[in-house]
Amino acid sequence: MDMRAKDTSTLYEQIEQLVDWLAEFGKSENGGVTRLLYSDSWDQAQRAVEKYMNQSGLVTYYDDVGNLYGRLVGSEENTTTILTGSHIDTVKDGGKFDGAYGIIAGLLALRGLYEQYGAPKKNIEVVSLCEEEGSRFPMTYWGSGNISGAKNPEDILNIKDSQGVSFEASMNKLQFGIGKYSLPKRNDLDCFIELHIEQGVVLEKEKKTIGVVSHIVGQRRYNLTVIGESNHAGTTPMAWRKDAMYAAAQLIQSLIDRGKEMFSDLVVTVGQISLEPNIANVIPKKATFSVDIRHSKEDVLERFCDVIFKDLKMIANKHQTQLEIDNWMNENPVLMSEQLNSLIQTILEKKQVPYMKMISGAGHDSQIFGQYCPTALIFVPSQNGISHSPLEFTNTKDLEVGIQVLMEALYELAY
Amino acid sequence: MDMRAKDTSTLYEQIEQLVDWLAEFGKSENGGVTRLLYSDSWDQAQRAVEKYMNQSGLVTYYDDVGNLYGRLVGSEENTTTILTGSHIDTVKDGGKFDGAYGIIAGLLALRGLYEQYGAPKKNIEVVSLCEEEGSRFPMTYWGSGNISGAKNPEDILNIKDSQGVSFEASMNKLQFGIGKYSLPKRNDLDCFIELHIEQGVVLEKEKKTIGVVSHIVGQRRYNLTVIGESNHAGTTPMAWRKDAMYAAAQLIQSLIDRGKEMFSDLVVTVGQISLEPNIANVIPKKATFSVDIRHSKEDVLERFCDVIFKDLKMIANKHQTQLEIDNWMNENPVLMSEQLNSLIQTILEKKQVPYMKMISGAGHDSQIFGQYCPTALIFVPSQNGISHSPLEFTNTKDLEVGIQVLMEALYELAY
Repeated sequence: MDMRAKDTSTLYEQIEQLVDWLAEFGKSENGGVTRLLYSDSWDQAQRAVEKYMNQSGLVTYYDDVGNLYGRLVGSEENTTTILTGSHIDTVKDGGKFDGAYGIIAGLLALRGLYEQYGAPKKNIEVVSLCEEEGSRFPMTYWGSGNISGAKNPEDILNIKDSQGVSFEASMNKLQFGIGKYSLPKRNDLDCFIELHIEQGVVLEKEKKTIGVVSHIVGQRRYNLTVIGESNHAGTTPMAWRKDAMYAAAQLIQSLIDRGKEMFSDLVVTVGQISLEPNIANVIPKKATFSVDIRHSKEDVLERFCDVIFKDLKMIANKHQTQLEIDNWMNENPVLMSEQLNSLIQTILEKKQVPYMKMISGAGHDSQIFGQYCPTALIFVPSQNGISHSPLEFTNTKDLEVGIQVLMEALYELAY
Repeated sequence: MDMRAKDTSTLYEQIEQLVDWLAEFGKSENGGVTRLLYSDSWDQAQRAVEKYMNQSGLVTYYDDVGNLYGRLVGSEENTTTILTGSHIDTVKDGGKFDGAYGIIAGLLALRGLYEQYGAPKKNIEVVSLCEEEGSRFPMTYWGSGNISGAKNPEDILNIKDSQGVSFEASMNKLQFGIGKYSLPKRNDLDCFIELHIEQGVVLEKEKKTIGVVSHIVGQRRYNLTVIGESNHAGTTPMAWRKDAMYAAAQLIQSLIDRGKEMFSDLVVTVGQISLEPNIANVIPKKATFSVDIRHSKEDVLERFCDVIFKDLKMIANKHQTQLEIDNWMNENPVLMSEQLNSLIQTILEKKQVPYMKMISGAGHDSQIFGQYCPTALIFVPSQNGISHSPLEFTNTKDLEVGIQVLMEALYELAY
């Protein structure tokens, strides 16, 4: 694809071209995309985006962790920056839209704005964030976290990928982390606007084109371990058992039942379980399962966890088992900017776009930016809610509406 | 150990010696025993038992599948045979008593009887059965099944062990299965008496030395698969989920709760479970778990399974999931001989041994014999109910009582 052959194609066509073009970098055998942080395909994608930015008349630069920026330079002296974008990295065998859409939206919005209106007053930048998924190293939001100052070089000491390659070595190999580029922390950001696919079924079910996110949920994650006693499945009467699976079944059911009863927007998921010894004719001595609890209000999370873990301890006791609770993740809910959302809603109403306010149940870079500067997160629908899969899909028509809304918002903010 | 130096040691001492001696064949690193069917350690153990039988004055012979017999020849013409014994094979890293005790008991009982009373009227034989555990090949009760006619050579065609060695080749290597020895099917058995460790905690908890088994339970085994839908743990509201783990938790709880409510002696175990995709932040699309149901009465098993699987289907439907039921084992309960048990109880009462009638929750060779000839199964306690482990243990005092009871029973039956 020749990026200079731009002018004659419509926005719709350009979106389709860019989505397929970016998905070529890290394309997997079954049609998915794998762009792990600092891998060859990641590097090729960033270089290609850099080239596209340059061809679009943007001033490009990297920071020291590999975030890539394209700036439409503002005409005002000492001006601040309006930032848009998303992450370039993917999960293994992910889709073409997760992260990529936010970057493509920024690229096309800036190009369109410049072609139509020339230079803005304030700087507008599109950022291709280096990392969000945590799919290579046990580290998430490395890109946005460095920009906001929430992350720093100490955080990645001693972190390795599944092949034993250190985070630092993989970063240094691409000339990042060695002081060659500017420090990532920004002090000039007015706000951040991210376009992203919903990765859920709400917009599709509600027949809306756009979701305006009011909050990103807080998350608590636990590993629960039920310790009972292994015994022969035939020779141990029911009354004498300390059956870790039986106890775990009741714990899981109570946990989810109570979540549904207590708070309508709370989501509770047990996605992993393992038994010991895991043999059909042996009573399990140990059951370990994951618990993922999310809500948009911190006090709801707190109240629910207070109540439920007391209940669960009682249930475990009743089964003569012990319950060990390991809370390994606590992320607070993050409010998106009401001012930005109100601007976006005005645009949506003017354009008569079917939209809804909603909560993001998934984490996004916006949750890092939202703790640092006014931030807006705009969703477009995901077909069947599928994401992190080669089957991930959003209609180009919906992608286009998102970009048009972004362009108008950036125009209002920067021109 | 010199087997001929027998005469001066007490029964108690002889038991301790024989238990340790037999456990040397296939001794594992951490003190357990591994004697897989037709392995070197299995062969060495059978040869050693054969030698011991010969030294005790028994007439020894193998059958064509490797069952080893030692006969105390009866004085009556064309007489029938009283059989006792158990299996020589073990699970991997099993204990010193499972199976071995029944053989040792037979050896010492026959030796003691002969020393005390000379030749019996009827033949008494001790059998060291080739296989019961199914721990090398996917085949159980190969020894007793061949004697009763329940098994035959066709059953092992195309069966291989985990190393890819065929059942037939491993058998032939030791000169079995080639017509060198007599056919295993017996037509001269009056009855079979098996001494075995309980492998459960009932006798220990009830402070009894002997358990007289009235029934061996029937078993039904199932794999249940719950099919739901995978979705993002954050973006999918609770009301729209088809959560296979949530459904499975309620299924498992209902299954076990109902079992406990409906029939006091029923045991229900879920020993294995697996989820797909088994990721903490993904709603499981599939949960597969094992169900093991046992009871001593066939109509109870039938009624319970009828009721419960209707209930479970309804629960799965309520969760908008599908339930697939795979019933892969159906073993009927087996009645032990009331006549033999009454003889044994008379002996126990005369000797003032603390005993109880009980049900065997585990399968044993007696369940194969019990469908073919009058059979008795006598339990001695297992410390803490532990079996199939190097920690398996029974007091020599209890082992001794069992052997004394066996001797008296054999005397009553054969002299």
